[in-house]
Formats: sequence, C-alpha cells, structure tokens
Amino acid sequence: MPIVTATRLVRFNAAHRVYNPTWSDERNQATFGKCNNPNWHGHNYTLEIAVEGSVDPDTGYVIDLGTVKEVAERELVRHIDHKNLNLDVPFMQGTIPTTENLVLACWRILAPHLQPARLVRLKLWETENHYVEYDGR
Amino acid sequence: MPIVTATRLVRFNAAHRVYNPTWSDERNQATFGKCNNPNWHGHNYTLEIAVEGSVDPDTGYVIDLGTVKEVAERELVRHIDHKNLNLDVPFMQGTIPTTENLVLACWRILAPHLQPARLVRLKLWETENHYVEYDGR
Amino acid sequence: MPIVTATRLVRFNAAHRVYNPTWSDERNQATFGKCNNPNWHGHNYTLEIAVEGSVDPDTGYVIDLGTVKEVAERELVRHIDHKNLNLDVPFMQGTIPTTENLVLACWRILAPHLQPARLVRLKLWETENHYVEYDGR
Amino acid sequence: MPIVTATRLVRFNAAHRVYNPTWSDERNQATFGKCNNPNWHGHNYTLEIAVEGSVDPDTGYVIDLGTVKEVAERELVRHIDHKNLNLDVPFMQGTIPTTENLVLACWRILAPHLQPARLVRLKLWETENHYVEYDGR
Amino acid sequence: MPIVTATRLVRFNAAHRVYNPTWSDERNQATFGKCNNPNWHGHNYTLEIAVEGSVDPDTGYVIDLGTVKEVAERELVRHIDHKNLNLDVPFMQGTIPTTENLVLACWRILAPHLQPARLVRLKLWETENHYVEYDGR
Amino acid sequence: MPIVTATRLVRFNAAHRVYNPTWSDERNQATFGKCNNPNWHGHNYTLEIAVEGSVDPDTGYVIDLGTVKEVAERELVRHIDHKNLNLDVPFMQGTIPTTENLVLACWRILAPHLQPARLVRLKLWETENHYVEYDGR
Repeated sequence: MPIVTATRLVRFNAAHRVYNPTWSDERNQATFGKCNNPNWHGHNYTLEIAVEGSVDPDTGYVIDLGTVKEVAERELVRHIDHKNLNLDVPFMQGTIPTTENLVLACWRILAPHLQPARLVRLKLWETENHYVEYDGR
Repeated sequence: MPIVTATRLVRFNAAHRVYNPTWSDERNQATFGKCNNPNWHGHNYTLEIAVEGSVDPDTGYVIDLGTVKEVAERELVRHIDHKNLNLDVPFMQGTIPTTENLVLACWRILAPHLQPARLVRLKLWETENHYVEYDGR
Repeated sequence: MPIVTATRLVRFNAAHRVYNPTWSDERNQATFGKCNNPNWHGHNYTLEIAVEGSVDPDTGYVIDLGTVKEVAERELVRHIDHKNLNLDVPFMQGTIPTTENLVLACWRILAPHLQPARLVRLKLWETENHYVEYDGR
Repeated sequence: MPIVTATRLVRFNAAHRVYNPTWSDERNQATFGKCNNPNWHGHNYTLEIAVEGSVDPDTGYVIDLGTVKEVAERELVRHIDHKNLNLDVPFMQGTIPTTENLVLACWRILAPHLQPARLVRLKLWETENHYVEYDGR
Repeated sequence: MPIVTATRLVRFNAAHRVYNPTWSDERNQATFGKCNNPNWHGHNYTLEIAVEGSVDPDTGYVIDLGTVKEVAERELVRHIDHKNLNLDVPFMQGTIPTTENLVLACWRILAPHLQPARLVRLKLWETENHYVEYDGR
Repeated sequence: MPIVTATRLVRFNAAHRVYNPTWSDERNQATFGKCNNPNWHGHNYTLEIAVEGSVDPDTGYVIDLGTVKEVAERELVRHIDHKNLNLDVPFMQGTIPTTENLVLACWRILAPHLQPARLVRLKLWETENHYVEYDGR
C-alpha cells in the first residue's frame, strides 16, 4: 500500500514578546533586540500540518483534510488566534514564545488527535522570510 | 559526486467529483460532502516534479528541466488539463479522483520517463490551503 | 472626511464549460478550444471585493470587513462554491460562464448588500495568470 | 511627457488592539470581537507606496525607488515595526488603530517627503485576505 | 453594455544595466549604484496586460485572453525573454532600460494589436518588492 | 532535546549565461538554447537556508535567524547580488553557472559559518517555476 503525505494549512494572528524573564533587561535587549519590545509586536502565522498514511481504498483519502482542519481549529487555532502568546495561551506558559517553541507546542497538541494518520511534519511560517519545521525527533 | 534535487512546476485545471460509486448517495454525501456534487466542481492544480541525480560536469545540470517540462506536458498534462478527472482520463478510471490518488497516478506515469535522473518526490497542490506528497514508498 | 477603499478576498472552487449553446459544435470548438470540453473543467477562483466610504470616527472602519465576508458567503459563495456554474447556479442561467459574465453577476448580487459602504470594484482571478475587473460602469 | 506610477513595497510587524476607549467593554466586544483582545494581537503588514510623475530623461526614473524605500524606513517603518500601534506610536495616538486609520496616518507622514514625485496611492495589507487603499481624497 | 477590464500576465527574464551613456562613470555610479554594474545583472519580470471593452454577448469575452497572450508572445516576449535589454532589443535602443522606460516601450508595442479591446493599463513587476504602471497618459 | 529546523530566506538578482566554454557554439546552442545568449540574461533568485539543531532553553532559538541573515549577506549575497555569475563571482569561476552549481557553491560558502547549528538544506529558486535543493550528500 503506497504511503502518501497530506498537508493542510491553517492561519492565525498573534502578539508576542521574545525575552527570557530570568534575564536582565540589558541581556534581553542584547539578545532579542526589537523582538523584546515590552509592549509586544505580532505576526500573521501560517502552519502547515502534514500527516502520513496509506490511502484508504474506500475513500481515496489518507485522512479527510477537513477533519485535520477541524481538529486544528478546535485544539489549536481558537486558543492562539488573536491572542497574546505570552499572556493568553496556557500551553505556552513557561516557554519563550519563539517560532521554535511554538511549533513544538503545536506538535504536542495536534499529534494525539490525528489517528489513524500520523503527524509527520509541521512547518510554521512567522513572516514570509522565515519558518521553522519539526518532525517529531 | 554531489547529489542535487531539481524541481519543475507544471499547472493544469480540471473538474472532478469525489465519491465512491459502490456506495449509496447518502453515504457518499455523509463522507464527501460538497466534494460529492454530482454536477462536478474543479480546481487549479500545481504539480511540483522533483528529480534527483548527480550534476553532469559537462552541463551543470542534473537534468534539463525543460525536458522534464516536455515530458510532463506530453505524458501527463495534455491528458488532464481542462478535463474531467472522472470521465476523460483513462489512467484515473477505477479510482476515486482525490488528490492522493491523482498524485499516485502522476508518479506511475512520470517515473519511467525521467532517466537518468530519478523521480524522488511529487507535491500536488489542489488549493492554496492543501497539498499531498508522494515519494515512491 | 477622507474616503478609503477596503477590500476583502473570498475564494471558491467551481466547474464550468465555456460555450455558446446556440452555436454548432464546430464553431464552439473553434472559438473556445479546450474551455469547451463538454465534460467540464474547473478552477479555484479568488474574488476581491472593494468597498469605499468615509472612515467612521467611532469604529475606525469604512465597514467591518467581517460583515463583507459574511455577506459574500451568504449571498454569493455558498451558491457557487463546489458547484457547476452552467448547471447549478440560478443567477448564471442564460449567460456563458466566462470570468467576465461571472464578475458581472457577482456585482449584481453583492452591490445591494453593502450599504452604507459602496461597492466600487470587483477583481476576479480564475487562474494565477489572468483576472477580470468590474467597477459598475 | 508620459506619466508613470512607480510602487515600492515595505513590510513591518506590529501588535494592536482594535477598540474605542470611550465605549463600554460590552460595546467594544460586540463591535470588534476578537480584535478587541485587551492583551493585544498582531500582524505582518505590507504597504505598497505608489508615486507618480513624468520619467526623467536623464535617469529613466520617476523617482529612485531606493529613495522611496529610505524615506519609508526613516519616516515610517522604524516607528511602527515591532511596535504596539496603540502604545508605542505617537502619530497613532487618539485614533483607533484599524487598517483604515493606519493607512491615513501613513499618507500624512509620507506625502511631504516624496517630491518631485507625487504620492498617489497607498495599499496596506493586514492579512493575505484583506487590505485598504487611500489615494488622498 | 457594461465595460469590463480583462488582464493577462506574461513573464520573461532579462539582463540589463541601468546607466546613462552620456555621463561619467562616477556620476553613473553615484546615481545608479549596484544597478550600474558594467557586467550586467538581471531579473524575472512579470507584466500584467489589462484591456477594456464591453462583453461580447456571443462569447462572454471582452477579448479572448489567449489572443492577448499570443500577441504578447509574438510582439513582445520573444524579443526580450532571455535577452539583454541594452544590447539585444531594438525597441529599447536609445533609452535607459529602467522599469519605467520598459513599460512605456511595452505600451507602444502592444497597444496597436489589441483591438477591438483597448489597452488601458500595464503593470510591470521587476522584483517582488517593486513595480511600475502606465495607463497611456 | 527536540531537534528543530529553522529556515531564513534571502534574495538576490544576477545575470548569467549557461554554456560550456570547451564546446562549440553549435553544441552550446543545441544544449542550452536561449539560456546560452552570449549577451546574458538574468533572474531574481530566492535562497532558503535551513539549519538544524536543538532548541536552546535559554533563548528558545535553534540559532538567531538574524545571524543567519547577516552571515548570508556578508559571505554570499554581497558577492552575487546585482552581479554577473560568469564574470564577477570568484567562487563560480570554472563552473557553469546553472542553478545546480550555484546551490553547491552556496553550500560550500555557508556551511562553515553556521555553527553550532548545522546547515541541512538549501533550496534555490531561479524562477517561480523551478528550483533546486541540496542537503550535503
């Protein structure tokens, strides 16, 4: 049975501040620069959710990508869209809200909800000039 | 000799209906929803064709991507562009024309025609919000 | 009071056949070529809906673009998304479903529902290589 | 002498909250919904700056678009990039930071600095699904 | 009869050098900077060709955009694609090959060939960050 | 410790001619066609630079992507932007400036400068219709 990867994109907007609360202001500013603005800044994020599996001969689907979208909206997007990643999002508490830590949190949240397909890759765009990827390693 | 992957994009437009002809109307509607419209709907598809090989020292190419484009047009695109995937395309007969089944058919058709390069990945966009990938597994 | 134009994009997928039912098959084929496929083909459409007005000092909005989206979904998109423009869409009956005729129909449907803002331009993409615009003239 | 329009794009990221400080919380929530989050949210903005003029026969330019970029960076972008539009930006004080009010402020700031070309249009994208335009009326 | 604008995009790649041959090297370098490289540089250009007219009731078209594409390929693109705008293109001789002068030349070449539609706007992208427009004034 | 891949995009414009100087004009023309124009042509290139590593618990970063951008500008982009790849670029001497050979050169230049992160993939777009990738094999 051939194995196909199917990917759904979802989008959300959020504010954040990138800083380490255990550091001095000076060290934060030296390390994070304008991303350390205490009054926040924000982004339009795009998340690509890739799942893998064999193609079901009865449906021609690995998984209904409409289901992936619903799972992502319910488990993830409604908790972060139009939110402050530092203040409003329980699953980001205790981590610096970089794109790296956000993609890891997205993985922890989405992975249990996509059976029988397997989550195999997340690609998270923060601007049109940079993105991060995680594959569960 | 370093191994490089070279990718060419091709585009086509097609109509289709996603349904299982052995199922009842009710089950098709419950499973496929608006994609089951018996009067068809359609998409602009983009296919990314990735081939891999060593770089020929005489040409600097893995393969002339103009050749990849010609092969794709001749073997694939002219058979599916401005067509109905359910009715007009011999190589889709007997399969549900989901993006997954379409990418598998594209692989079977393109793989024999790209030597000495090796087809290593197809990525097929059906809308700007979802795509599927196949790598021959 | 300054006048600002605010634009919301909506997207839909549809099948169609471009042909003139009062013409012979030969003339249709000579005129419309592959767009005349009797088994249909289809597209991902993007519609840009531009409305104009003064900025309300109480809201900072010309109009809530969420409202524009809701109007467009209710009056337009749910009638054409995943549909056959020739067979399924009452407001396209009696017209050839070219992008030009589709944008004119979109104008007739949307214009009465956007007060107090004024609909001033529609831009309809049928592929990434062509689009049409209408401004009410 | 033919008149040509030349456009430069600039990009910035910012946080904001869309609300009217003279209204009750209930009215703000009913009017602005998730955009009213008191903990802010944010966007990647793209601004298209269009200037018009005759083509200088000595340079072939309406204006050096590198100059437009420098003006925009100096007068505008460094004051709003990675900032909070409600808290950090003097020229947004006293206005609700909607896309409409932001584009009007950008016009007031940029227009005096682009002679001998004339600023003729600003187009400001807040997400990939909506934008506003202002032409000085 | 409603008036609709229909736009076709075409793409080409070219090399150029932006400089004034009647000036000194120093003045050229001071004015044009890196665009003045005597060994050339180059771009992927995208040209949007907008024509206007009433919708033909027999075809639903302002003009067949396939015809616009053919005209553009024959009259314009094959003379500039994979060419040096300073050395290879007769209709650019005697002008500095800025985007402004190139769009004016495109207008002169295309306008006579698009009847009964009227050429009403050209939009020429030189990079993803800037473009010029001409409307015949 | 989870391993994340972080990618930064950079852009540059360049001229080139694709030909083998040890071949006859006829063989070059037969092999490389319009890319063999002796007067050059050019492109807007986009390079995606992907580095991999564990997420630093103190910063939330694999690596500061601002650093990746600075390294790329200093070591790579300023040597090729607005340049002729055949004539102006020391590290391209002796190779045919195809996208394949250019991506291999980019790897050799960037790889030593990205510790402690590891360069794991380069993706180089030459037009919107084709790109090459290299992963160090």
